[in-house]
Amino acid sequence: MKPVQSVVEIVEKARAHAGRCIVVPSAETESALGAAVEARKSGLASSILIGDCEVIKKKLAAMEEDARHYQLVQETSDPEAARKAVAMVRAGEAHVILKGKLKTGDLLRAVLNKEEGLRTGNLLSDVLVSENPMSSFPKILGLTDGGMNVFPDLAAKKAIIQNAVRLFQRIGFEKPNVAILCALEEPSDGMPHTLEARMLQEMNERGEITGCTVCGPLALDNAIWPEAARLKGISHPVAGNADILIMPTIETGNALGKAFTYFAKKPVGHVIEGAKAPILIPSRAESAQDKLISIALGILCSI
Amino acid sequence: MKPVQSVVEIVEKARAHAGRCIVVPSAETESALGAAVEARKSGLASSILIGDCEVIKKKLAAMEEDARHYQLVQETSDPEAARKAVAMVRAGEAHVILKGKLKTGDLLRAVLNKEEGLRTGNLLSDVLVSENPMSSFPKILGLTDGGMNVFPDLAAKKAIIQNAVRLFQRIGFEKPNVAILCALEEPSDGMPHTLEARMLQEMNERGEITGCTVCGPLALDNAIWPEAARLKGISHPVAGNADILIMPTIETGNALGKAFTYFAKKPVGHVIEGAKAPILIPSRAESAQDKLISIALGILCSI
Repeated sequence: MKPVQSVVEIVEKARAHAGRCIVVPSAETESALGAAVEARKSGLASSILIGDCEVIKKKLAAMEEDARHYQLVQETSDPEAARKAVAMVRAGEAHVILKGKLKTGDLLRAVLNKEEGLRTGNLLSDVLVSENPMSSFPKILGLTDGGMNVFPDLAAKKAIIQNAVRLFQRIGFEKPNVAILCALEEPSDGMPHTLEARMLQEMNERGEITGCTVCGPLALDNAIWPEAARLKGISHPVAGNADILIMPTIETGNALGKAFTYFAKKPVGHVIEGAKAPILIPSRAESAQDKLISIALGILCSI
Repeated sequence: MKPVQSVVEIVEKARAHAGRCIVVPSAETESALGAAVEARKSGLASSILIGDCEVIKKKLAAMEEDARHYQLVQETSDPEAARKAVAMVRAGEAHVILKGKLKTGDLLRAVLNKEEGLRTGNLLSDVLVSENPMSSFPKILGLTDGGMNVFPDLAAKKAIIQNAVRLFQRIGFEKPNVAILCALEEPSDGMPHTLEARMLQEMNERGEITGCTVCGPLALDNAIWPEAARLKGISHPVAGNADILIMPTIETGNALGKAFTYFAKKPVGHVIEGAKAPILIPSRAESAQDKLISIALGILCSI
């Protein structure tokens, strides 16, 4: 399978999989309904909307969308809506969860429920997919984790890598290049993240982190721009050619993830990986295109 | 004094101050010599080059630059070169220090020497100055600290703010807007940086951090883009209109600082503030324009 090169290709790839269904707990909010509408219009997926059906119908009407395109399920309690969404995924009726107006905590409690949830034993982490702003041709670049894990330790960073690698394999990257992002490209005693970065590279070399080639520490420029790696004399094959950037903390991931949108003006999608089904968390500031990319990623991760 | 709006104006403003002199310890490296050459050609400052004079002359010749434009001082020991540079600043012969090929540690040891150094009692921190990529008109945006302080505590963050505010006052911002950058725009117990961010805002409200208006926590989008602040319902005057972004850690600052260059393709300059004289640390990857902006910032901070 050839790796996708652009986010547009991700959407095309997802469109090839017919019959996928999204379930939206507590759907009565514009950001979630907007994503469900995008999914239908673009032929990506149908949606089950759980919530106050009257409110949902009114909001869809305001968006000039016919409610008859959707399966509506009446449920006004947020925790119950989350539980029903998870049950539908377990029953094979839905394949992707798209968060509505309920709190993320309410949704995750249902997802992580030991008896009735979608646990796999893996950590949940957010994977963002965009395009490398330094590449002269379209080139996918991933970033994780800017959304779930505040201050991941070494074991959590390993799990975050494996979640991202699994997603990248779904979009055709047989063995993605993974850069552990730090403020420096050399291990330094005064910077603990650089020491962990080198440990992760060594764990990969020993076969403890699989399906990818890991290099760290690297700084942003020498991770994504071959010329910067050359200037610094770094000869590792990942340097300058990273497919996935692993963040030291949520603050770095959140700021750099937003820089794809606000600094580089690139389209982005993101998905929470690690449960039995992908979870999407739309935001109000997202463009229609970005919603579509996230849904496409969700569909590809649900296959 | 009107605030500058673009980095070009920073260079123009610095050019108005004649007779400034840069001292370059261990000058025999292209990145430092390139900056000294830019400073001369642009009429910003003269330079004293400390190092192996024969090597310096050869390197200048290779750059097609006449060595007679510079005062050369023979000194092949890095720590001694640093000591001499600091002594020249103390004697008023030079006003800005530009790091040559010596290690940053060697330079800082001389700067921080208790008897013969340039201590002020303030923390040293790196301040980056660029332009807001989300603004439709030229608008200065600062970022600190992506270069010096690895994991600043609350007191260090306060000192980092005051260093940046001092610099911004030099470029005409009477009372800059300071945003404390986090992954969220609300204090959250699970994210210690958000709690410190709110404390810094409160310290500012109580008059313990002066010369600026502080708001935190804010995320990147709602710090620099008014529309994102509006969407999130944040009404603080700093939200969407930050002049300076305070980073939680060096990793966030380094990555987001580099995103100005590599994602937004914006010019950047940076200077280390907190000593009796500004310190510049050029890098090989820097453009000639970026070197010039750093020198201009150094000159304005030395007045």
